[in-house]
Amino acid sequence: MNFKDYIRDIPDFPKPGIIFKDITPLLATPKVFKEVIDTMADKVKDSDFDTIIVPEARGFLFGSALAYKLGKKLVPVRKPGKLPYDIVEVSYSLEYGETRIQMHKDALSKGEKVLIVDDVLATGGTIKAIETLVKKLDAEVSGILCLIELSFLNPREKLSNIKVDSILIY
Amino acid sequence: MNFKDYIRDIPDFPKPGIIFKDITPLLATPKVFKEVIDTMADKVKDSDFDTIIVPEARGFLFGSALAYKLGKKLVPVRKPGKLPYDIVEVSYSLEYGETRIQMHKDALSKGEKVLIVDDVLATGGTIKAIETLVKKLDAEVSGILCLIELSFLNPREKLSNIKVDSILIY
Repeated sequence: MNFKDYIRDIPDFPKPGIIFKDITPLLATPKVFKEVIDTMADKVKDSDFDTIIVPEARGFLFGSALAYKLGKKLVPVRKPGKLPYDIVEVSYSLEYGETRIQMHKDALSKGEKVLIVDDVLATGGTIKAIETLVKKLDAEVSGILCLIELSFLNPREKLSNIKVDSILIY
Repeated sequence: MNFKDYIRDIPDFPKPGIIFKDITPLLATPKVFKEVIDTMADKVKDSDFDTIIVPEARGFLFGSALAYKLGKKLVPVRKPGKLPYDIVEVSYSLEYGETRIQMHKDALSKGEKVLIVDDVLATGGTIKAIETLVKKLDAEVSGILCLIELSFLNPREKLSNIKVDSILIY
C-alpha cells in the first residue's frame, strides 16, 4: 500500500502559499493507520530509547499508539497553560510564527534516552525546541521519528547531530 | 493494579478551586498505560461501532492507541483553525469558559456508528457538543468511553440518551 494515497494536500492552509499535508484520510483507514504504526515501530526496532516524547496535538495520534505497541514510556510536550505540574519551557520560532512549549519538570530522569515522535517534520523548529527541553532535564535525544518529512524545508540541517527517521518524504 | 495510584491531583489548576486530574504519571508507566488501553478495549468489546472520535488534545492519547488495538477508524475533533478541510462546527460552554470545536465534513458517513473516547468526563459539555457534530453529519453516537468520570459534576444528566462507560469514577 502507498501511504501517500492517504495524505491529502490542502493548498493555502493555514496561510496562502502553504500546502498542508492532511493526515485525516490516513487516520480514517484502519488498515493503513495500523500499517503506519507498525512501520514506525520497525524503523526504530534497533534504537536504544526508554521514552517516546510527543508534541501536542497531532504527535499524540502517532506516539500514543506507538508507545502502546512498543511498551515505552509516553511524555507529552504541550503548549503553555496545558500541563498542570511544574514545568520547563522553551520559546522558538516556527513555520507560522513564534511560540512556546512546555514539558513537566519530572517527566524525564538524568540520562534517560528519548525518541521524539511527530506527524510532520517541517523546518525542524519544534523538534529542536524539544531537544532543548530534554537537555534541560539532563536527558538525551536518541532519535526522531516522523510520519512525513518535508525535505524541501531542509529540517535535517537544524538536526544534524540527531538520527532522523521518516516514513514519507516530500 | 490500581489505576488511581497513577493519577495525580493538582489543586487550583487551571483556576482556584479546581482539582485537576493529571494523567501524566499514568502515561509515564508503560505497563499501566497498556493495561488502561486493554481495559478500555474490553469495556466496549460488545458495542457496535465503526469509528472512534477523539477530542483534542488528551483524547488523542487514549483514542489513538485504542483505534490501533481495535482496528477502528479514527476521527479527530479539534479547536478552530486546526482542521484544514471543510468543517462542521459547534459552540458550547465548558467548565472553564466558552469554546468551539470542529470536525471535517467528510469525516463520517450517514448512519455511521461512533464511539467518543476522552480522558476526562467532567460536565459532559464537550461530549454533548461532539454528539451535535455527529448528528450534523447524520451519523450516530453509540457510546462514550472515558478514562476518568467526575461523577460529582453529574455528566450523565446531560448524556442520558447515550451509553457511558468510564474506567475510574471520582
